[in-house]
Amino acid sequence: MVRYHLGWEDAEGRPAEASGKCLRPALCLLACEAVGGEARRALPAAAAVELTHNFSLVHDDIQDRDRERRHRPTVWSIWGDAQAINAGDALLALAHRVLLDLAEEGPPADTVMEAARLLDERTLEMVEGQVMDLEFETRPEVDMASYLDMVDRKTAALFDCSLRLGALAASAEPALVEGLGRFGRALGVAFQLRDDVLGVWGSEEQTGKPPAADIRRRKKSLPIVHALAAGQGETGERLRRVYAESELRDEQVSTVLTTLDELGSREYCERLVEERAGQALAHLDGLALRAPAAGELREVAVYLLSPEP
Amino acid sequence: MVRYHLGWEDAEGRPAEASGKCLRPALCLLACEAVGGEARRALPAAAAVELTHNFSLVHDDIQDRDRERRHRPTVWSIWGDAQAINAGDALLALAHRVLLDLAEEGPPADTVMEAARLLDERTLEMVEGQVMDLEFETRPEVDMASYLDMVDRKTAALFDCSLRLGALAASAEPALVEGLGRFGRALGVAFQLRDDVLGVWGSEEQTGKPPAADIRRRKKSLPIVHALAAGQGETGERLRRVYAESELRDEQVSTVLTTLDELGSREYCERLVEERAGQALAHLDGLALRAPAAGELREVAVYLLSPEP
Repeated sequence: MVRYHLGWEDAEGRPAEASGKCLRPALCLLACEAVGGEARRALPAAAAVELTHNFSLVHDDIQDRDRERRHRPTVWSIWGDAQAINAGDALLALAHRVLLDLAEEGPPADTVMEAARLLDERTLEMVEGQVMDLEFETRPEVDMASYLDMVDRKTAALFDCSLRLGALAASAEPALVEGLGRFGRALGVAFQLRDDVLGVWGSEEQTGKPPAADIRRRKKSLPIVHALAAGQGETGERLRRVYAESELRDEQVSTVLTTLDELGSREYCERLVEERAGQALAHLDGLALRAPAAGELREVAVYLLSPEP
Repeated sequence: MVRYHLGWEDAEGRPAEASGKCLRPALCLLACEAVGGEARRALPAAAAVELTHNFSLVHDDIQDRDRERRHRPTVWSIWGDAQAINAGDALLALAHRVLLDLAEEGPPADTVMEAARLLDERTLEMVEGQVMDLEFETRPEVDMASYLDMVDRKTAALFDCSLRLGALAASAEPALVEGLGRFGRALGVAFQLRDDVLGVWGSEEQTGKPPAADIRRRKKSLPIVHALAAGQGETGERLRRVYAESELRDEQVSTVLTTLDELGSREYCERLVEERAGQALAHLDGLALRAPAAGELREVAVYLLSPEP
């Protein structure tokens, strides 16, 4: 199940190639290089964050009842919920195990322990974020502060972790580790907010999902959080009424999209993404990092946050 | 959810007292004392094994659709599967985090890393055991070797881990850590086999479950694994036919119990438990451990393995 989910095998165990983007491990390796380390030394950390990310995907897919990921059936849809829970558990235990291989040719034991502590704490944050996200689905309304707090935990914590671990693998100064962590966290928030914008207004080509997929599933993502807060009187009521339905028809999806237009939600969201993206890049530019890795980190960030990926 | 599951709160968050037996942490602390350490130094390890055990219980309850544990509703039956998956994930991340507190007043960083590696590897073994156990439910037959291999991973790995971590917390010699681990593993196997015997022939008072609960749920536990292997001709066929049903009525449960009697399954199982219990105690008695903890370890083992708990 783990090899299948990671894209190395098909469901019958035959070799396959269907890997994810490996975004988090790329950030981890670049962070290591940007503080003057050889990327090779950060490989166990890069593997650990990718495995941790995949642990959360396998469990998220069960929780969200998603039948497809990366254009393939999800683990639970093939092996059932019970075994998919085990697959996610194995990925999480494996992530923690593999991180400890940092010690083999890298930093001293104290630093490896700091890395392990960091991975544990960020994993806990991710789980907290997931608890909040699921809990939001049961609420009529979610305020912007709670929403941003959830994103900070659910998505940004692991970005933060990826960059810090890369820097730790090269035994970087604490201030540099902290600075890269802050960049990672701001980048993670901006990345998720942009993902929320794409979930409503992105093309099928961009997202691999039908248009307005997040509306269809009545997700309380950024645009809706904005609209519920901004929508007064009849406009707001209309939105609340539609979102109280259990499944949305095409006509209702159109109603929601029109309401978002009326309330200026798209502009609000795009401005917020831009603001957070700017903060992330400002964090990065304030750090004394080495070329060419520093420039590559910037390119990855700009690519991730650009309106058209 | 975590505080509820651990028995510290009720479902509304009010203080409660409904803790488990804390068997694994007790073994961990005694192991520390038995090699000459102060139990206090092993507290983070003891907490880690108990949290790891509870992570597996929360996920097992979802997988087995068990609505009750320790005479209280299970986490999933209150908060739903999705949030219960999160609760188990949090317990696992928490277990790994808390173990690293060993460093605060205990062994050097290298030893703490060895402890962390051990916890990760034993956790992976547990998950493998759980994968096997669920997979066995879908098979018509399970041979004794596969069954014992499953028990070794699912139950014994964490007993092994509890004892080793206690010894590591006191910076014991490798040979002593290894010896205690072997005792733990043998104890864990014997404990599970005995639990399987109780699951069929234990009283409601002993197990907290209705009589022959494991038969009723068509579990492929030790007695059935024996009977399926030993049952030739008509006797075997009868058993296979009944176990192919989806839910067993009282009459069919009686048929299975009679078949187990005819095949001498109870005697076989009790002999096996005794044999494994003897091996566990022989491991323990072969180690150079300190009084009074060594004697207490022995008492706990004898108590756990006694026919009448």
